[in-house]
Amino acid sequence: MKFYDCATAPSPRRVRIFLAEKGVTLETIQVDLSKGEQFSEAFKKINPSAQVPLLQLDDGTCITEVSAICRYLEEIYPQTPLYGRTPVERAQVESFNTQLETNGLFAVADAFRNTTPGFANRAMPGPHDYAQIPALAERGLLKLDNLFADLEAHLATNQYMVGDYFSVADISALTILDFARWVKKGIPDHCTNLLRWSEQVKQRPSAAA
Amino acid sequence: MKFYDCATAPSPRRVRIFLAEKGVTLETIQVDLSKGEQFSEAFKKINPSAQVPLLQLDDGTCITEVSAICRYLEEIYPQTPLYGRTPVERAQVESFNTQLETNGLFAVADAFRNTTPGFANRAMPGPHDYAQIPALAERGLLKLDNLFADLEAHLATNQYMVGDYFSVADISALTILDFARWVKKGIPDHCTNLLRWSEQVKQRPSAAA
Repeated sequence: MKFYDCATAPSPRRVRIFLAEKGVTLETIQVDLSKGEQFSEAFKKINPSAQVPLLQLDDGTCITEVSAICRYLEEIYPQTPLYGRTPVERAQVESFNTQLETNGLFAVADAFRNTTPGFANRAMPGPHDYAQIPALAERGLLKLDNLFADLEAHLATNQYMVGDYFSVADISALTILDFARWVKKGIPDHCTNLLRWSEQVKQRPSAAA
Repeated sequence: MKFYDCATAPSPRRVRIFLAEKGVTLETIQVDLSKGEQFSEAFKKINPSAQVPLLQLDDGTCITEVSAICRYLEEIYPQTPLYGRTPVERAQVESFNTQLETNGLFAVADAFRNTTPGFANRAMPGPHDYAQIPALAERGLLKLDNLFADLEAHLATNQYMVGDYFSVADISALTILDFARWVKKGIPDHCTNLLRWSEQVKQRPSAAA
């Protein structure tokens, strides 16, 4: 099994932290997005969508998308379950993780890709070109302000993103909040619950992944 | 268990079709989004995010987000599995379903909510207000054109969205393509594979849900 990674990019980092929490090391191939290696003919043969992360199984089968890769890894490495331990907990993790993607990951990506000169005409990842929309970058920053406030209120009564249980939702949140620094949005000083959570999660060895 | 639905809205329809495929009927409560019933104090007590669908368990636990609701239903009603039958198939379903959401569901929603007068300042669902961005509506329409082309190519060698297996990805695609008519985007006549798939899926009794 081979893991196609890019050491500097947030989406593959979600998989790296997931693997670290599982205690699993995979053969890893770096695809340098800053050099456009995802558009090479060799890589596009593996993934026509020109995106990392990607997991290639020994029979050649390729799995794309963070959620699909992590759920596959959860099945074959069931130790330290990160998607929940009961049906209800699994539902809560899935729900919170989805909201973090919608309200957080896409917000940072919108803010970053719609303003950064290097992404002119590449406002979305994937095989198709889209022009930048500056107003969407502004909406992304506003969404982040709302996310900080919502997470601050949520963490007043939750140790982790879902109750007292460290899950894939915490991995997503950690990655998103670090990614937000790319658009100069740090956790505000008055968000003491969110800062407490951040300190707690960053003390885990997986955070270095 | 109670299912909070809105008979006219695309997101709860994904759950309705899912339930129909499972052969499960739940006590259903209609929340009329056209009348703003999702913002009533009574409903916001159940879901502060003011969104449907929502599944309320007998102990009062609420599950939000289509994917969390459907995965919970898959666990408690394992007959007719819709998320895949093997680890690899489950990964492929999750991956394709995620791509359909990113490239399809959000594309239609962007096109619809950023132009429709009734959604002024409500360009995104949920508790926060966001101004409309007309350029994002245009990007949504362009994304749909790309989606039609990508699905047409994909279905040249696949009976369903994932191989020969009807899955939640087909439910998402059916819902998205019907939702696309709200922004006057029908499947183009030259997309014969996609039209074949559409006819096939619409013959299933669940499509009426």
